[in-house]
Amino acid sequence: MNEFRIESDLIGDLKVPTNAYYGIQTVRAIENFKISSHKLSNCATFIKALAQVKLAAAKTNYELHSLDEPLYLSIRQACLDIIDGQFDNQFPLDLIQGGAGTSINMNINEVVANRTLEIMGYKKGEYNYCSPNDHINLAQSTNDAYPTSVKIALYQMHDEVYQALDNLITVIRIKAIEFQSILKMGRTQLQDAVPMTMGQEFEAFAYSLEKEKRKLVTAREEFLSINMGGTAIGTGLNAPKEFAELCAENLREVTNIPVYVAPNLIESTSDTSSFVEYSSALKRLAIKVSKTCNDLRLLSSGPRAGINEISLPALQAGSSIMPGKVNPVIPEVVNQVCYKVIGNDTTVMLASEAGQLQLNVMEPIIVHCLIESMELMKNALTSLKEKCIEGIIANKDVSENLVKNSIGIVTALNPFIGYKMSTKIAKEALITGKSVYQLVLEYDLLSKSRLDQILNPENMINTQTSFSA
Amino acid sequence: MNEFRIESDLIGDLKVPTNAYYGIQTVRAIENFKISSHKLSNCATFIKALAQVKLAAAKTNYELHSLDEPLYLSIRQACLDIIDGQFDNQFPLDLIQGGAGTSINMNINEVVANRTLEIMGYKKGEYNYCSPNDHINLAQSTNDAYPTSVKIALYQMHDEVYQALDNLITVIRIKAIEFQSILKMGRTQLQDAVPMTMGQEFEAFAYSLEKEKRKLVTAREEFLSINMGGTAIGTGLNAPKEFAELCAENLREVTNIPVYVAPNLIESTSDTSSFVEYSSALKRLAIKVSKTCNDLRLLSSGPRAGINEISLPALQAGSSIMPGKVNPVIPEVVNQVCYKVIGNDTTVMLASEAGQLQLNVMEPIIVHCLIESMELMKNALTSLKEKCIEGIIANKDVSENLVKNSIGIVTALNPFIGYKMSTKIAKEALITGKSVYQLVLEYDLLSKSRLDQILNPENMINTQTSFSA
Amino acid sequence: MNEFRIESDLIGDLKVPTNAYYGIQTVRAIENFKISSHKLSNCATFIKALAQVKLAAAKTNYELHSLDEPLYLSIRQACLDIIDGQFDNQFPLDLIQGGAGTSINMNINEVVANRTLEIMGYKKGEYNYCSPNDHINLAQSTNDAYPTSVKIALYQMHDEVYQALDNLITVIRIKAIEFQSILKMGRTQLQDAVPMTMGQEFEAFAYSLEKEKRKLVTAREEFLSINMGGTAIGTGLNAPKEFAELCAENLREVTNIPVYVAPNLIESTSDTSSFVEYSSALKRLAIKVSKTCNDLRLLSSGPRAGINEISLPALQAGSSIMPGKVNPVIPEVVNQVCYKVIGNDTTVMLASEAGQLQLNVMEPIIVHCLIESMELMKNALTSLKEKCIEGIIANKDVSENLVKNSIGIVTALNPFIGYKMSTKIAKEALITGKSVYQLVLEYDLLSKSRLDQILNPENMINTQTSFSA
Amino acid sequence: MNEFRIESDLIGDLKVPTNAYYGIQTVRAIENFKISSHKLSNCATFIKALAQVKLAAAKTNYELHSLDEPLYLSIRQACLDIIDGQFDNQFPLDLIQGGAGTSINMNINEVVANRTLEIMGYKKGEYNYCSPNDHINLAQSTNDAYPTSVKIALYQMHDEVYQALDNLITVIRIKAIEFQSILKMGRTQLQDAVPMTMGQEFEAFAYSLEKEKRKLVTAREEFLSINMGGTAIGTGLNAPKEFAELCAENLREVTNIPVYVAPNLIESTSDTSSFVEYSSALKRLAIKVSKTCNDLRLLSSGPRAGINEISLPALQAGSSIMPGKVNPVIPEVVNQVCYKVIGNDTTVMLASEAGQLQLNVMEPIIVHCLIESMELMKNALTSLKEKCIEGIIANKDVSENLVKNSIGIVTALNPFIGYKMSTKIAKEALITGKSVYQLVLEYDLLSKSRLDQILNPENMINTQTSFSA
Repeated sequence: MNEFRIESDLIGDLKVPTNAYYGIQTVRAIENFKISSHKLSNCATFIKALAQVKLAAAKTNYELHSLDEPLYLSIRQACLDIIDGQFDNQFPLDLIQGGAGTSINMNINEVVANRTLEIMGYKKGEYNYCSPNDHINLAQSTNDAYPTSVKIALYQMHDEVYQALDNLITVIRIKAIEFQSILKMGRTQLQDAVPMTMGQEFEAFAYSLEKEKRKLVTAREEFLSINMGGTAIGTGLNAPKEFAELCAENLREVTNIPVYVAPNLIESTSDTSSFVEYSSALKRLAIKVSKTCNDLRLLSSGPRAGINEISLPALQAGSSIMPGKVNPVIPEVVNQVCYKVIGNDTTVMLASEAGQLQLNVMEPIIVHCLIESMELMKNALTSLKEKCIEGIIANKDVSENLVKNSIGIVTALNPFIGYKMSTKIAKEALITGKSVYQLVLEYDLLSKSRLDQILNPENMINTQTSFSA
Repeated sequence: MNEFRIESDLIGDLKVPTNAYYGIQTVRAIENFKISSHKLSNCATFIKALAQVKLAAAKTNYELHSLDEPLYLSIRQACLDIIDGQFDNQFPLDLIQGGAGTSINMNINEVVANRTLEIMGYKKGEYNYCSPNDHINLAQSTNDAYPTSVKIALYQMHDEVYQALDNLITVIRIKAIEFQSILKMGRTQLQDAVPMTMGQEFEAFAYSLEKEKRKLVTAREEFLSINMGGTAIGTGLNAPKEFAELCAENLREVTNIPVYVAPNLIESTSDTSSFVEYSSALKRLAIKVSKTCNDLRLLSSGPRAGINEISLPALQAGSSIMPGKVNPVIPEVVNQVCYKVIGNDTTVMLASEAGQLQLNVMEPIIVHCLIESMELMKNALTSLKEKCIEGIIANKDVSENLVKNSIGIVTALNPFIGYKMSTKIAKEALITGKSVYQLVLEYDLLSKSRLDQILNPENMINTQTSFSA
Repeated sequence: MNEFRIESDLIGDLKVPTNAYYGIQTVRAIENFKISSHKLSNCATFIKALAQVKLAAAKTNYELHSLDEPLYLSIRQACLDIIDGQFDNQFPLDLIQGGAGTSINMNINEVVANRTLEIMGYKKGEYNYCSPNDHINLAQSTNDAYPTSVKIALYQMHDEVYQALDNLITVIRIKAIEFQSILKMGRTQLQDAVPMTMGQEFEAFAYSLEKEKRKLVTAREEFLSINMGGTAIGTGLNAPKEFAELCAENLREVTNIPVYVAPNLIESTSDTSSFVEYSSALKRLAIKVSKTCNDLRLLSSGPRAGINEISLPALQAGSSIMPGKVNPVIPEVVNQVCYKVIGNDTTVMLASEAGQLQLNVMEPIIVHCLIESMELMKNALTSLKEKCIEGIIANKDVSENLVKNSIGIVTALNPFIGYKMSTKIAKEALITGKSVYQLVLEYDLLSKSRLDQILNPENMINTQTSFSA
Repeated sequence: MNEFRIESDLIGDLKVPTNAYYGIQTVRAIENFKISSHKLSNCATFIKALAQVKLAAAKTNYELHSLDEPLYLSIRQACLDIIDGQFDNQFPLDLIQGGAGTSINMNINEVVANRTLEIMGYKKGEYNYCSPNDHINLAQSTNDAYPTSVKIALYQMHDEVYQALDNLITVIRIKAIEFQSILKMGRTQLQDAVPMTMGQEFEAFAYSLEKEKRKLVTAREEFLSINMGGTAIGTGLNAPKEFAELCAENLREVTNIPVYVAPNLIESTSDTSSFVEYSSALKRLAIKVSKTCNDLRLLSSGPRAGINEISLPALQAGSSIMPGKVNPVIPEVVNQVCYKVIGNDTTVMLASEAGQLQLNVMEPIIVHCLIESMELMKNALTSLKEKCIEGIIANKDVSENLVKNSIGIVTALNPFIGYKMSTKIAKEALITGKSVYQLVLEYDLLSKSRLDQILNPENMINTQTSFSA
């Protein structure tokens, strides 16, 4: 009984487990990159995208008469099996690796080749019948196949982030409608400003995030530009002239994603700006989500020595020592995810800047960071929706009393008594503790009926904001 | 002779220089913010934008019958004088300030008011005839007038960055054409890869930057959404319902920039994402420009112990000790500008995330960073074009000899002798120092004529890249 | 057969798996924080530290007569079992969580309590005999127990990073000795400068990293300041006055780490600067390691169209398309780890700045980032040592020929012929291709014997650097 | 009348203004680097340090018999004149420049040379009597003289930052004593926690910053390690063996700063870690100062719809529309400075990582960032002290009422009635609005006298914090 087969390469011979669909290059890479716990085998979408690219390339080679039909059909079946998720455990590599993704490209080449051999009735490793390099990687290089697969994967992962964001916005809007008639003080610079409704505040949260949906979609568009056919440095060495366009067409068919050939394949080979773009979009979203969570924590501060205009749902005992304390744990964890996403953007920036000449060898860390940020953001947005926003309760009495007692409403008197006189009233209210209403009457500046009209909440809240859910 | 006039506010009385067009709030702010050397008086475009916004607001108030005609016409003239640049020295404030730009808004209010008073034949400070708050700031707040002015200013400053970038690209493309027939080794991971032309390499530089033109323009679009009419927190308190749309129309007329009213004025009041977006675009550009400079420094390394495929123009003695040394000083300074732009993006991110509730009080540092980054980037791109790219010389012999002696050309043999045999040849070439050409013939793998055909440079460089200047 | 027990808290009743040592608070937190793949159960050192802190606290409570002897002895045994690693799978929580670590503190409280109950012969959940809050968390709060445990854990994890760094330095120094007589061109600004030895270059790599050892150790010192005894906000509410000092003493005994009571417990409760410090130290190390890897990649560039002064060990086929290509995959992956460590430092900065009033609730993401960065850095340094540095070969002939042909050696003539004449010679050498040596003789500036003496390598390399391994 | 003199170098001839003490290299650099508004002429401390280094070098050369006495004495006088500040306007260069500081080194070389010539009775430009390169730069290179000057300058600038920080701490401590008997709620996670005094809170602010004093001083220590004597790459080519130690001694004498020769001059030449270290220290300080400002803004929020425990001094009208509004403008501007300092740290990191082989050519941007951050931080700390902290007023009644009405005081009952019963009381208090005190009596859990004793503020605030100013 023989548990290993022997494979060989430039460096020498090596044992590969007999059962393994991967081959010598994957085994070398397992040994070479023992860096992190982030393994390709956990990224089903990425594995699927790799197989989709290999399938599109094989079809193209077949159509260009570089592969014969029986071999093509077997490769096709092998790719479909991988796309189906049957071989995820054959991708044991660390996502963080040197070599610009060469190891991952060789991993998929080897798994496709060995699965193809199996389908054709050969033994694994009989690469003279189907070689990872000469057949599966035919007319390709890591430098086109890897980034193209990455783009296909991220394009698909985007949908989950988008959906989580959209769901969150929907729930915030439902709250905005629920709170639309609750008066509250608006605050600028943490100081009492002028009145508004809590519905306006929540609708602003929603609208702020709404804009990010468009932004993410726009950023994603850049993933559509692919460089299959460019091979090693974009000159297309070893790929037939027709390869690029035909492969893009086949990849569109396989993935149902409208990819197209990059206008300049040499530039495209080393270009990582689509990743920078999407990371920037995630960062921008993170900034806004973090600001929203900061606000939720502020507005729910207290219950007695804070603002306490809203109450967040109680999810767990807030303290191991302070009984009855309930903390805003979900906004807190979402804030932290946002910081991580922003930190990852720093990493993406560094890796992108480090590209040299005809390739950016730092792509693997970019890919890891984007996958991590998307996963974290998706989970954070879903948690925020389900475990926080949906259960928020408005403390109407607290909120409306703050308006009634505020000095800020003096602003509404400007057009009638002037900024200077308003300032005088405001100052006296602050010192004496009297209300603005009372002082205006004492000074006989306006009639009671006029004053009532001016300070009527509906008149103070002159919003152009419409509500929709 | 009296050199001061006395003005007063909430805090008390204060001396203001008799000649000053600014008033008490500006004097307080001069005293309060002694932070940096970045003064508003040096930002003519920003001052102009502030006056344009005040003019559009005054016109709106006139049309809505809130200002009478004689006063409006005088205010109009005052604003035009400021737009004309006659009063730049009346804006002595530090760009880095607290209060979310209130001091800058009061500075422009005061200068317009006092210039208006002068035009009307009154003395400065006679604010009962024209008040900074009640007339110039009428139906406005810092929270709408300041960010709107910022957006107008940045929209205009963008043009200079864009033009500098465009000029740079044009010159790189001229070089790409000049170098289009010079063969060179492409390099991936700093290792010899496969041949290309130097023209292809430069065209890739150009195309890479070309994409950033579109990106900058897209980012700039977000500056068009303004919140005039929202006043303090976006509810529009103290502004007539028609103010927002009419003011936007007047501002379009005054500036010739297609601004429009933000769909949600409450959200817009605290939103800084347009600044984040433009900063991200500058960062993305900086990443690419930095990568380009890194490459130029690599390719011109030497002259004898480096790559030396190109020579940059000699601008100054490179060393105080090493005679004859000439350094790539322009790419070096451009790299450094890129690092500063990226650092400023970190600052913008922090400031944007720190917004709370109905306002982002940290806008002034965002504005400073964007102005600084745009100014630096404009200068850097212009230097790179004029003092570096234009004078680059290709060292044709050096470059082409590197191709001839390379092992990388073995890649072209893959389709004919297979990856495995090619690997064997490559390895032997490396060990023995023999050329690939020689070894293929020695092993009798291909006929000489076939080999000559395969290794013909034109056949190896199968580019889809077209050249245009 | 009953698979669940019922536990209850402020929020209500909940099913807990009968076999689980953790309790209701942990179950709530599992449900509440579904964010990342980073689980406490994978951090044995952290779990051990949590149990060490609980043991020290229990001993302190026993000595202060707050716990009776039988209960204390059982708690002690429970903690020792956890320290022994027997219960790692009872800590299923996400490291990224809200609540400032409350869930993790409750997790350890519950596991210790239930293990104690088991030891005492009770059933899990019979908390009247031993309560997670009243007994295990006695005189503590999350806000002292969690950060203290974190510091103990990081203090211990530091050793592995330090050891990996030390091992790397040792190997670089061995190479420095091996290369001490190999002449090479020094390069500044990527331009040929003046000669040095390759040994000097490698010793500089080593010495540069050597300084980071001290830096890391200094940064670690800040972990020694702990806040046990401060409870919720540092006022020590519910902890006896003697608790802090006695607990520190007990913790020293349990861990063999010289912790001490923070001088200001209130400040200490919200302070995260020790984490910022260690993260800065890791960032500084990352900057240097990244620079070193950049240099290794530059020096090994080629083999024919680059510098090629050294060869890195070939670990795997470098390309799926380019036969024979061998890439510097280990420096590449180490660069990427450095970028991730620097990105994590951004996250730590954001989280630290976000602390408010008496607590920094963002500690969990700080802890995650530090653990991740330390783990990645340890693995990267070890890979760099084992799979790269140890196998580096100097290409002596290449290197020394570059010196012989260089213009930079003209610098040595300054003291004899002046900077101006040296400049003239250098310029002519560059244009004509002649050697400096030849030109000096042609111009009869120095006698041949004098020239030979000046340009003797030993005389040019006047180093104060000593070698030690 | 001739307004120009002609100077020449490697590149060719150039006109230099007759009056200028600088020469051709400076003129070239003015032309080459038109990047920013940050000029060397505005950095008196840096110019002084450059002249101090040149003086120490000249003295060393004199003592080593490389300069004769008359020339040395004239150079000495020239340096003293520059140190005295008489020639600051002769340093017109942009701080942001390529060439690793070569232009700045040549600028000082030229000004010293021409001033020396003047003193000796020669005309400017008669460099055969005293040459910028052969005499002023003798035995030096930019690569040792520039970074050494930078370190001397930063060492001195540190004092101002330190003093501003120390002054701020002193004033915070005065406030801590003033507020030491004012009760207030402590808050964790923005939720009411347990009581403390306002004095404790302010003392924690002070102590937190106090630690940064030591940290800054420690970071500064690294500036003491200098590389004079290393010349171009640290091998000391063209410098006598005794130069390094003797120059350090002379520099100690000239500056009264205890500089010493770096142990490894080759490593030291390219090492920028001392700058990274000081930038990290500034960043750490910025994080804390920003957190402190965030807290001040929170605690002074209101006046009626916020926390309002303290009032900050009113410095200016807070709003152009909202009369009577007073904003926390100083904490706000200080926050923004902190963000800029953190952004600059990103730039320093990027520049440090970009060093290659024997030099870090990106030092100028590092120097600019450190100078800017130190200047901004000094101004911000001074503003915070003078215009904010000194005038803070505690709102005692507001603060103490918040404690009285709080639920958080229930924590103090844990040791007497248990965590579970305390939780029940807390929950009921929240729902019913009753006080904890009332409920404990209603449920007859403790006697009134016992309860009064437990909830006595002095007993709840068991602090180890001592006060000192």
